[in-house]
Amino acid sequence: MVKINENYLKLPGSYLFSAIARKVKEYKDANPGANVISLGIGDVTLPLPAAVISAMHKAVDEMAAKETFRGYGPEQGYDFLRNAIAENDYKARGVDISPDEIFVSDGAKSDSGNIGDIFSTDNVVAVCDPVYPVYVDTNAMAGRAGDYDEKTGMWTNIVYMPCLEENGFLPKLPERRPDIIYLCFPNNPSGAAATKAELKKWVGYALENGSVIFFDAAYEAYITEDDVPHSIFEIEDAKRCAIEFRSFSKNAGFTGTRCAFTVIPDELKLGGASVKSLWNRRHTTKFNGVPYIVQRGAEAVYTPEGREQTKALVAYYQNNARLIKNELAAAGFSVSGGVNSPYVWLKTPDGMTSWEFFDELLTKANVVGTPGSGFGPSGEGYFRLTGFGSAENTREAIERIKAVFCK
Amino acid sequence: MVKINENYLKLPGSYLFSAIARKVKEYKDANPGANVISLGIGDVTLPLPAAVISAMHKAVDEMAAKETFRGYGPEQGYDFLRNAIAENDYKARGVDISPDEIFVSDGAKSDSGNIGDIFSTDNVVAVCDPVYPVYVDTNAMAGRAGDYDEKTGMWTNIVYMPCLEENGFLPKLPERRPDIIYLCFPNNPSGAAATKAELKKWVGYALENGSVIFFDAAYEAYITEDDVPHSIFEIEDAKRCAIEFRSFSKNAGFTGTRCAFTVIPDELKLGGASVKSLWNRRHTTKFNGVPYIVQRGAEAVYTPEGREQTKALVAYYQNNARLIKNELAAAGFSVSGGVNSPYVWLKTPDGMTSWEFFDELLTKANVVGTPGSGFGPSGEGYFRLTGFGSAENTREAIERIKAVFCK
Repeated sequence: MVKINENYLKLPGSYLFSAIARKVKEYKDANPGANVISLGIGDVTLPLPAAVISAMHKAVDEMAAKETFRGYGPEQGYDFLRNAIAENDYKARGVDISPDEIFVSDGAKSDSGNIGDIFSTDNVVAVCDPVYPVYVDTNAMAGRAGDYDEKTGMWTNIVYMPCLEENGFLPKLPERRPDIIYLCFPNNPSGAAATKAELKKWVGYALENGSVIFFDAAYEAYITEDDVPHSIFEIEDAKRCAIEFRSFSKNAGFTGTRCAFTVIPDELKLGGASVKSLWNRRHTTKFNGVPYIVQRGAEAVYTPEGREQTKALVAYYQNNARLIKNELAAAGFSVSGGVNSPYVWLKTPDGMTSWEFFDELLTKANVVGTPGSGFGPSGEGYFRLTGFGSAENTREAIERIKAVFCK
Repeated sequence: MVKINENYLKLPGSYLFSAIARKVKEYKDANPGANVISLGIGDVTLPLPAAVISAMHKAVDEMAAKETFRGYGPEQGYDFLRNAIAENDYKARGVDISPDEIFVSDGAKSDSGNIGDIFSTDNVVAVCDPVYPVYVDTNAMAGRAGDYDEKTGMWTNIVYMPCLEENGFLPKLPERRPDIIYLCFPNNPSGAAATKAELKKWVGYALENGSVIFFDAAYEAYITEDDVPHSIFEIEDAKRCAIEFRSFSKNAGFTGTRCAFTVIPDELKLGGASVKSLWNRRHTTKFNGVPYIVQRGAEAVYTPEGREQTKALVAYYQNNARLIKNELAAAGFSVSGGVNSPYVWLKTPDGMTSWEFFDELLTKANVVGTPGSGFGPSGEGYFRLTGFGSAENTREAIERIKAVFCK
């Protein structure tokens, strides 16, 4: 009898955002008149930049003529895009990354999940707590997580690094040595950012301990403070111990257009094997490249117009996040994030659990956010709000929250 | 020390088509004047259908306005596309597949590789020999293949089902019972098609033996004979033992546009677990959906204009394949395929090995094909040519082949 991967059966419940979507749908079905504002899932709401739109129209036209039609492209991405990334995201910041260390993909979610394929299932994985669920779930699927403990909400073989108020929501170095360390800065969900000194500490730790850092920099465009690196490779020697994930989702609004990339430096060798070569083998065997049209759109993000338009998008969401943070802080809430990040991390009032606050917020204020506990046990008692709504909705949501909770 | 997935180190050489591309590049670099015609990789050459182009332009415009912009879509695909697939690819053929049994993805290559995630690494896998390399390589990466034997060109734990001339290039039932059986009909690389009676035999075998069939139907649009099913689900009870992979690459020319889908019926249960639910969990955790623009393009394939235009594309490639087959047969070659398939399967002349013929063909006729041995040991002495070139190039390639090999 064919056997399934039993690790899947260990996964508790469903994916966090599917669970939220279901709850919201049920509420809306029961209350068809309700005007529900979502500051929940980290999805953008503004249209794509004009430069991207016109590049994609042009690419669609190319696909319509025999002379300019494109079939299979290089699985790793077209040179035009890999060159633009190397030039603008790295060289411009003084980081020397070669285009062939860049793998264009359909999403940082896919990459940060699939990257596990090239590593042994014996490795011990460390994650921040709270954490983007994909890191944990994909390791659970691969058999690296051990068993799920309903009582603690934790997996027996995952090293959790609590990110608590007392250390500014930054993780401390783990007590048990992990092989793989997931770091996401600016952080999802807490919005906390890591300074150069902070990242240096992690690179040093990884090199000393023979660990690899999976660095998720999907929110780097939101960095406003000078001392916060945009890439882990701004840290000396990080090329020998880190892989970086980037995305066009949160800067250029590609959540529904799908383009991202992963950087694996040549210097990253494990037991003599080139990690880049392993990933190249996976990428060429299990993936067939990002649509040509989409890659042309992504390339346009780096044109002068594209850069300006993208900056404006980011500024818009950033204003929302700042507004949420400042207004709720002024109203007496305990809030962090929202400075180098589109996310605001809210301490739930009156000792409510995250899901209790979710329900109250949904039913009394008709506002949707994301329960902190959905991101891990140390997220309990916290709540994530995002700046990705419209400015009007964001203001309206803030007023409603104040009206319900600040009497 | 972090450990890599050692299975990757067992993989011999590089991915077949990368190896061919490298050889061709070397030849072209050394002979810049050579007019090399490729009938090698199965890539289309005609532009996208006009209906697809106009649907994508419209979708790009939608992404440019706030009111119609789309962010994250459902990971499984938009209803508009899943409904169109269920209606046109299944219901119209008398097969009852519900839209929620359909998972839209970026490619059949990705899906047929990733599907292994939800199955135990203990399962024994059977493949046709020759075979599309992705099936074998992805199982080797997962640790299901055992070790690679350089001498035989075979993996120690894969069950090979030789497809030889004497049985019309169709596999015989395996002697050792496999858990997972990969079938691809119309076949890549041989171009052989399986009749209803043939597929019935396999469904019966799978049900009797508790095996699952991974059915790759990427070439179904090329079927011309009535007795050849387009879907495995045209066979009674196949829903209890099969998963089907489909693609828009070879019918509508989406090789560089990227859209495909996988069908997992509700009836497919293993040890009480719903395989569809497992795949849904994988799909929602490690994938974020196909670009909205591309899904609108795929939807347009099913409009009256899209259907007509797609049919014309297929007919064009089919004519090429038929021409290759008939002309080379008349010239004394031993050829098969090319009837329900864009692929022609050629026996190499004078007992040459597949790679010897590849080199001769490249250097003497400046024509590129795919060595049969690249698809498995039983492909040795064979060679794959495709109908995906232009009509002019195809005719020219045939003349050159005849001039070099038929003196």
